[in-house]
Amino acid sequence: MTLHDTPPTTLLAAGDAGAAVRRGPGRPRDEELDGQILQAVLALIDTEQEVTVARVIAGSGVSRAALYRRWPSMTTLIAAALDVGRSVPAEVPTDGDLRDVIFAGILGDPSFGADSRYSETRFRQRIRLVMADRQLQKAYWHSHVARRREPMERALQRGRERGILRPDLDTEASFDAIAGACYYQLVVRGDSFDDPATRARVSAALDIVWRGMLV
Amino acid sequence: MTLHDTPPTTLLAAGDAGAAVRRGPGRPRDEELDGQILQAVLALIDTEQEVTVARVIAGSGVSRAALYRRWPSMTTLIAAALDVGRSVPAEVPTDGDLRDVIFAGILGDPSFGADSRYSETRFRQRIRLVMADRQLQKAYWHSHVARRREPMERALQRGRERGILRPDLDTEASFDAIAGACYYQLVVRGDSFDDPATRARVSAALDIVWRGMLV
Repeated sequence: MTLHDTPPTTLLAAGDAGAAVRRGPGRPRDEELDGQILQAVLALIDTEQEVTVARVIAGSGVSRAALYRRWPSMTTLIAAALDVGRSVPAEVPTDGDLRDVIFAGILGDPSFGADSRYSETRFRQRIRLVMADRQLQKAYWHSHVARRREPMERALQRGRERGILRPDLDTEASFDAIAGACYYQLVVRGDSFDDPATRARVSAALDIVWRGMLV
Repeated sequence: MTLHDTPPTTLLAAGDAGAAVRRGPGRPRDEELDGQILQAVLALIDTEQEVTVARVIAGSGVSRAALYRRWPSMTTLIAAALDVGRSVPAEVPTDGDLRDVIFAGILGDPSFGADSRYSETRFRQRIRLVMADRQLQKAYWHSHVARRREPMERALQRGRERGILRPDLDTEASFDAIAGACYYQLVVRGDSFDDPATRARVSAALDIVWRGMLV
């Protein structure tokens, strides 16, 4: 699932011409091009069309070369598009009550919130697409989910250093149990995070995991 | 997504004729018909075709009426097909070591095992399909997953009664955290339960949840 599925020479030949056209004074800024490309990918996903190089070029109006330069692999492009509207959370403050901070971080996670730019529809699309394509799943995991976990995992490590959490605590497995309880609601139960019953269940699950993490 | 999407009168008229043909001495037994129908649905899912009434009839060789009698809704039929090879686990023995029994129950769960009839491929298909169709997700949850949880949830309740687990423990949320940690490996990390590192991580997560459940 890379651009190399099409012979590279063809891609480059066609692309160079397109890029040359754009190299005038009115050439769009790089961020604009990136935005156009990502929105074109999302438009295809929203209409349940397969994401192909030709369709992304047609939908975004960028040249093949510009697309190729920015996204040498379709897999990483689709992963990035699925992550539009999300970001790596800020560092978790560790001078206050660690339990409060973790609960707020999870229960206030925009991926599960009602009024976020990252909607439940997009979440469901993401899971659907990654279950059909393990390469995309791994790309999304490494480039997006794993990076987003880091601030919380660092906070857990500091909790261990501060003597709040068990010194031998497996912080990676802790996070898997916490996040897993959240995913379970949306992926297995088919519930929504807008539902107070869902939030109450996640909060109860978090409380159980938290107790299991303590010294 | 029910058979009623097609006008019922048409369905029944065509179906009655088909059923009459089958009412001879060579009429296949009910279980055989059910197996034929379920296999036809799985064949469509395996080849990524949409499951329609016409295709199930063509693939299974059963009459429209026979299909309709057994499966008044396509949603429940697809849910049942996705569950072929799985069953509700036996009651969990509660006279022995509860921790051992729970760990064995989860780490030996055929849905996550290597050599089970219920393959990882089928698991991925199931998640992909339910994320595209919340009605199917809810049907699968109520008819299959929720029922499969019951023996383990009863074991947790008895653990509470025996004074091993906290008297106020939310056993439903406990199960969500345990199962969620398992799902997280396959759905988010894209890992396989055949991988010893995955099993070690699930085992560590289980240990954390278990500690949080104790008195």
